[in-house]
Amino acid sequence: MAEELDQIELEIVTLLNKHAKKKFRNLFLSLHGYEQSQIFAKLDLNQRKISYALLTPKELANVFDDTEEDPVETAKYLEEMDSQYAARLLTEMYTDNVVDILSGMRPIKQRKYLNLLHGDEAKQVRDLIHYEDETAGSLMTTEYIKVTDEQTIGSAMQQVKREAQEAELVTYIYVVNKQNILVGVLSVRDLITHGDEEKVANVMTTRVLAVDVNEDQEAIAEQVRDYNFVAIPVVNQTEELLGIITVDDIIDVIDEESAEDYSRLAGVDTESVTRNPFQTALKRLPWLITLLFLGMLTATLINHFEGLLSEVSVLAIFISLITGTAGNAGTQSLAVAVRRLATNSHLKIWRLILNEIATGIIIGIITGLCVWLMVGLWKQNLLLGGVVGAAMASAIFVANLAGSLIPIGMEKLGVDPAVASGPFISTLSDLTSVLIYFNIAQYFLQLFIR
Amino acid sequence: MAEELDQIELEIVTLLNKHAKKKFRNLFLSLHGYEQSQIFAKLDLNQRKISYALLTPKELANVFDDTEEDPVETAKYLEEMDSQYAARLLTEMYTDNVVDILSGMRPIKQRKYLNLLHGDEAKQVRDLIHYEDETAGSLMTTEYIKVTDEQTIGSAMQQVKREAQEAELVTYIYVVNKQNILVGVLSVRDLITHGDEEKVANVMTTRVLAVDVNEDQEAIAEQVRDYNFVAIPVVNQTEELLGIITVDDIIDVIDEESAEDYSRLAGVDTESVTRNPFQTALKRLPWLITLLFLGMLTATLINHFEGLLSEVSVLAIFISLITGTAGNAGTQSLAVAVRRLATNSHLKIWRLILNEIATGIIIGIITGLCVWLMVGLWKQNLLLGGVVGAAMASAIFVANLAGSLIPIGMEKLGVDPAVASGPFISTLSDLTSVLIYFNIAQYFLQLFIR
Repeated sequence: MAEELDQIELEIVTLLNKHAKKKFRNLFLSLHGYEQSQIFAKLDLNQRKISYALLTPKELANVFDDTEEDPVETAKYLEEMDSQYAARLLTEMYTDNVVDILSGMRPIKQRKYLNLLHGDEAKQVRDLIHYEDETAGSLMTTEYIKVTDEQTIGSAMQQVKREAQEAELVTYIYVVNKQNILVGVLSVRDLITHGDEEKVANVMTTRVLAVDVNEDQEAIAEQVRDYNFVAIPVVNQTEELLGIITVDDIIDVIDEESAEDYSRLAGVDTESVTRNPFQTALKRLPWLITLLFLGMLTATLINHFEGLLSEVSVLAIFISLITGTAGNAGTQSLAVAVRRLATNSHLKIWRLILNEIATGIIIGIITGLCVWLMVGLWKQNLLLGGVVGAAMASAIFVANLAGSLIPIGMEKLGVDPAVASGPFISTLSDLTSVLIYFNIAQYFLQLFIR
Repeated sequence: MAEELDQIELEIVTLLNKHAKKKFRNLFLSLHGYEQSQIFAKLDLNQRKISYALLTPKELANVFDDTEEDPVETAKYLEEMDSQYAARLLTEMYTDNVVDILSGMRPIKQRKYLNLLHGDEAKQVRDLIHYEDETAGSLMTTEYIKVTDEQTIGSAMQQVKREAQEAELVTYIYVVNKQNILVGVLSVRDLITHGDEEKVANVMTTRVLAVDVNEDQEAIAEQVRDYNFVAIPVVNQTEELLGIITVDDIIDVIDEESAEDYSRLAGVDTESVTRNPFQTALKRLPWLITLLFLGMLTATLINHFEGLLSEVSVLAIFISLITGTAGNAGTQSLAVAVRRLATNSHLKIWRLILNEIATGIIIGIITGLCVWLMVGLWKQNLLLGGVVGAAMASAIFVANLAGSLIPIGMEKLGVDPAVASGPFISTLSDLTSVLIYFNIAQYFLQLFIR
């Protein structure tokens, strides 16, 4: 498909440059909106201007509705158009997408476009634009089909026929009472398998799941995923129907949230890509420098033991082995805790902690024994092996426990636990590991050697 | 909703224990399939057996179709039922879910259930069961509505009315020619907004995107996400229509893939949860012990420099600072490279590498300068600060580059780049960092001190 599209893209650009209206329209309009948007994104200013002349606002609305481009980019395109054309384009687009574009604009520009829109459309956009980011309100669209519980199936069907072209999705038809309170839902299936004379109220499913307009997007995604919905209605506190969220927007939320978790685990924003290495460096440095200070703390701690180190310099050999392995164990338990906190709302915190304590003991003992043997045999010194092994076991136990306690503590404090990153845990465990290692070493070496 | 459900669950269990058939059915059947499955999962053997007596196979099929439980669990439930009941249950379920359950069984059990199914149903399951895991074939269902291009809209509508109860989704109706070759698609919208006499061939969209039955699930998810589809048809090499994949299964794929990426970055399977700490430990130890050997390599390297260390014991203080910070930088660039390889099929590899080289230089120099100042002032020794700073800068540069080269190399070798985990990169960078640090130290200290 990608190669085929490259071919078509070339053809379309050629037709555009030649102003070959009919051929261009035939080819371009035969494509899916997403494909159109992929091609549109590659046009230069001149080619875009030709396309505005050759396509109707409604046709271009289809392109913009399916684009993956940043709404800020799309806002720039609007500036290139005749403002009447832009206004009609926005009117034809789905309201949720218009809101995305307008909410990224500076207030003065935003007002300009709101003034260009027709009263009704402008009101819908205005209603949506003030909802907070990442809530149901910011995701919902107002293009859905709504009937009342007093209508018949036949009249509902007539309405669906009239409104189907406008609606973003016709799989569900929502049923409200006279007060616009959501009272039920009809599937298209219900509509076409029931007689025209039946009352909507008798056919509809009354147990309809809706989300509050201020609900967080992650919780909504959870519900849509669990219930296998294709769309979910949005209501206010009095159960009044305000809009719907469609599954394609839910997929975007799921992608966004998982990219966020991934980024946080790595301690870097993996998604916002720039070609400028200075900007890339600027995004990564804050975490690195913050952790550098934590690392300096570890250095001063080792400095504190310099006497011991200069006396028994062999100890230095195993610093990175112990800190590294404990850091790895901490990263593992951190990732498990973050995921379990995110995916399991009925999680029993104490069971998780107890499980990690037991796991830490087991992993610590097994790894410690391995290290005891390896170091003991290598250095022909079972005491030294024992010191390193015991330090390893304790350091792993502590790092493992910290890996689960830190995200749990953050969750309790209301901070998203995913801010506890892998680099943070491993740098922190450097500190605890060194502390454990040198204390154990000092204790045992005093006991046996001096 | 969760609290409400807990309340209802209690009530349902009470009704079950009392064998209160009518009340139980009224309450239980008023719930959504997902909610029913959540409650069913908590019943004990005795309660489950009562539920088999009180629910029809079709009603229980609805529960099993929406369950989030492992198919292996569901397979165990089948064993508790009368085999005729189980057979009817499987017949009523969507084929893709039946395949999930049966494909986890031992061959002898699998054959038993296939024999219990009716000829037609058994054939459909048999057709699907041999598709490889994570391909289109393993995800698709055969419950969809298919019309021919020669039918009229009216006759297609009649067919939809007849088949709507069976189909998993009625948003799209697929159009085939006499050879069962996929030639178009109708939306329900098309169906209800066109006249009964029009020909399907004239109304349908002919440019229909389908996936090959052997296509990988990640690529399919990509397409459904890009095109905002609610379902996508599956064809074989001759474009014959074999089934459809619905968006709810795509969401599961997206979740699965992102959990996989997350797990790999952390070097631990974060998803398969067990209450047994021995099993948990067993899952984490392989990576830890593997990396332990890599860590031992670093230890032998430091051992090689023991002479230098015992002479200039202050060097030991900064080992963990350098290895830790370089490891953090490596984890960052690894995560960025893995994500960019996964999400951008048009990625220019050389640009990514060049960008990381430049970024590594910038980050290295800035961090190195910070360290030079901090160590120089602290130890009142700008030469020592310079050694540590220069080592830090070089170690960061190398770790940063390794973080992107390793996943790129793995991609070239055809290994999924996500197997390069954060713990692996940071343990590897311990080795390179130590190598760099002691070589720089040896060189400079020889030059100035001896």
